[in-house]
Amino acid sequence: MTDFTKLSVSELEAHKRDLKNQYQEFKAKNLNLDITRGKPCAAQLDLANGMLDSIDGENYKSADGIDCRNYGGLDGLPEAKKLFAGFLEVEPEEIIIGGNSSLALMHDAIVRAILHGTVDSEVPWGKLPKIKFVCPSPGYDRHFFICEYLNIDMIPVEMDGNGPDMDRVEELVSGDDAVKGIWCTPKYSNPTGVSFSDEVVDRLSSMNTKACDFRIFWDNAYTAHHLTDTPDTLKNILETCRQAGNPERVFIFGSTSKISIAGAGIALMAGSVKNMEHTRKLMSVQTIGPDKINQLRHVRFLKNMAGIESHMKKHAAIIKPKFDAVQNVLAEALGNKNIAEWSRPNGGYFISLNVMDGCAKKVVQMTADAGVKLTPAGATYPYGKDPRDRNIRIAPTFSPEDQVQTAMELVAVCILLASVEKLLEE
Amino acid sequence: MTDFTKLSVSELEAHKRDLKNQYQEFKAKNLNLDITRGKPCAAQLDLANGMLDSIDGENYKSADGIDCRNYGGLDGLPEAKKLFAGFLEVEPEEIIIGGNSSLALMHDAIVRAILHGTVDSEVPWGKLPKIKFVCPSPGYDRHFFICEYLNIDMIPVEMDGNGPDMDRVEELVSGDDAVKGIWCTPKYSNPTGVSFSDEVVDRLSSMNTKACDFRIFWDNAYTAHHLTDTPDTLKNILETCRQAGNPERVFIFGSTSKISIAGAGIALMAGSVKNMEHTRKLMSVQTIGPDKINQLRHVRFLKNMAGIESHMKKHAAIIKPKFDAVQNVLAEALGNKNIAEWSRPNGGYFISLNVMDGCAKKVVQMTADAGVKLTPAGATYPYGKDPRDRNIRIAPTFSPEDQVQTAMELVAVCILLASVEKLLEE
Repeated sequence: MTDFTKLSVSELEAHKRDLKNQYQEFKAKNLNLDITRGKPCAAQLDLANGMLDSIDGENYKSADGIDCRNYGGLDGLPEAKKLFAGFLEVEPEEIIIGGNSSLALMHDAIVRAILHGTVDSEVPWGKLPKIKFVCPSPGYDRHFFICEYLNIDMIPVEMDGNGPDMDRVEELVSGDDAVKGIWCTPKYSNPTGVSFSDEVVDRLSSMNTKACDFRIFWDNAYTAHHLTDTPDTLKNILETCRQAGNPERVFIFGSTSKISIAGAGIALMAGSVKNMEHTRKLMSVQTIGPDKINQLRHVRFLKNMAGIESHMKKHAAIIKPKFDAVQNVLAEALGNKNIAEWSRPNGGYFISLNVMDGCAKKVVQMTADAGVKLTPAGATYPYGKDPRDRNIRIAPTFSPEDQVQTAMELVAVCILLASVEKLLEE
Repeated sequence: MTDFTKLSVSELEAHKRDLKNQYQEFKAKNLNLDITRGKPCAAQLDLANGMLDSIDGENYKSADGIDCRNYGGLDGLPEAKKLFAGFLEVEPEEIIIGGNSSLALMHDAIVRAILHGTVDSEVPWGKLPKIKFVCPSPGYDRHFFICEYLNIDMIPVEMDGNGPDMDRVEELVSGDDAVKGIWCTPKYSNPTGVSFSDEVVDRLSSMNTKACDFRIFWDNAYTAHHLTDTPDTLKNILETCRQAGNPERVFIFGSTSKISIAGAGIALMAGSVKNMEHTRKLMSVQTIGPDKINQLRHVRFLKNMAGIESHMKKHAAIIKPKFDAVQNVLAEALGNKNIAEWSRPNGGYFISLNVMDGCAKKVVQMTADAGVKLTPAGATYPYGKDPRDRNIRIAPTFSPEDQVQTAMELVAVCILLASVEKLLEE
């Protein structure tokens, strides 16, 4: 392995010729592969097929006798609240169970704050001249789209191995009362795979915020989504917020979309009793209640926390080899060359890859030209603008392992080629 | 039968003594009945039990091969769009299929207009000092709650046998550009049971509106919910709006909640292609897509329009006797007495009962005191304020027929007693 940044011009030129040939060979294969989104594969969805059989026309009543077919139950079925409160490490009165989309719960929580304010708002956010969110980046593009859609200014903050750069976060939230929120994917973060350290959780919970109604949007999307037998742990933020005297600071979100069935899972929102009571009151205008039948399906199929954990091990068995394939290709092709670095997550759905500054868009374009679609470069940053144009998100779960392998081999060639070309320009 | 308004004081006093005795007899029965909400009964829900069996772990793909379990399909499953476009008399590209709540689709449509404006808005509605909706009344309380929640001023307009008083509607919408919308439940209206006449539909479609982005919120909740073999018909408003040169004027809503399963139905929104494209674009920030599995269940079970129609006949067979029980009690107890009038709907979920001015609250309170819950008096009017305090909504579907009968016998006694007391005061 060679440090590419120390190669001579003629060595680089030789690599360039060789890589161009390799790239042309890939092009000749007429590939048509897609590793853009964090979608489960069919084999993962098959794991929950039993859930679809768990309710029929004979057994649609909850354990406490509720006819789950009829209207009612605004914030979810009691037994579903019990199970998923445990899942999110909160109490049943601290959870609301929605429809099939946690993104909708997050969107709606912000819209409610804009139109009505939170329990501790002096005015609805929408009455202020400007509101801003802190956006640890790289992060989840759909979080950023919500902000853009709602005209919320986004302030990117760098992610490191412990979570967001907390010095910078504290500076931002303590200095400007227009800063009303922060987006966090605290465990196996999208895309970096980082789980927030205890210190980061503590600092988020206790930091001084100039806005009295500041909210942490805690998208705990991958809390049970381990890839190893030594999973990351995450401190309970509702508890740390309470201890820090900021009990209303956090809105927690979760989902079974990547546990049971992607499009027909159930979405979860949690927080202090005061926050949840306020949310229930406002929600009651929007809907008569969620699909309780689907909540009952989940409880019947997953049963309890042990059921969820053993189910998630089956997911890991299917997707771990795909993550390994990505790691192996990257290590073999790019290891110790000083032109790229990437995450080795213990869970979640993504591998985050940083190439040389200014090369991400080029690499994504080159792979697309050779038939492999990647998440657009920049998508992991607010406004789609990666300031260093270097981050690429790899989503290996959906495609078969051999396709992931092939796609990553092409990605590696494109990264090498783009790097060599950049080094030759310097 | 006697016109009570022509009785002498002594005759009224005699009735009063007799009615007080009857009321006390009801009280002694310790009734605990509830005819407040338009909920289907268990026997109606049973009709769709086969739907719950229509998908299992083996057959979750749509007719065109979509794995309905995975993410995607923002605006619904193609075969569901096809079936329910027919149901709402629109084209598949003119429909969006959502989650389980049409109320949520209506709420969200107004919130989008507030935050972003419609396709023909000059500014988002939320940037205007005030917006107003015309509210034909009596109407659906949950429509009015949405307006109250979103700080939209409500202007009540009277309903007659053809729909809203169109002279007044035209006057309101042509004179004030703050008037942005009108709520309509155009078929078997909640609670009056009225279906809008062709002339009303034509006038709504073609009337001059001062606001260029005026919208009709057309909640066609009961379109297939007939109680007779000679059902009401309703002119196609998307078509009439198009013909009148106002193709974007109407947002149509529908739902299978009272066709298949109340809490696990699917919700529908329809309108011009331009409106739907705009809606899809904004919706894409809010969710990755609806529960396609449940949409597939509906298509498999209901199959086609003939399937929906024959299914609805089974509903009618269950609920018609309950409506008849209400009619019979009311006719027998109150007929030709000149103290009450009520609807005789050909479909829908309600009977609307007008008592003497100033008596509705009293009647509802008296029935509650004797153990029968009715929808709160006033609920059918904006802000819960019935200006004449006379409208009572009867919802006979949920309770067994004998309970409906008993409840209505009590209601009749209370109406008679309240009327006699009022006449004695005059």
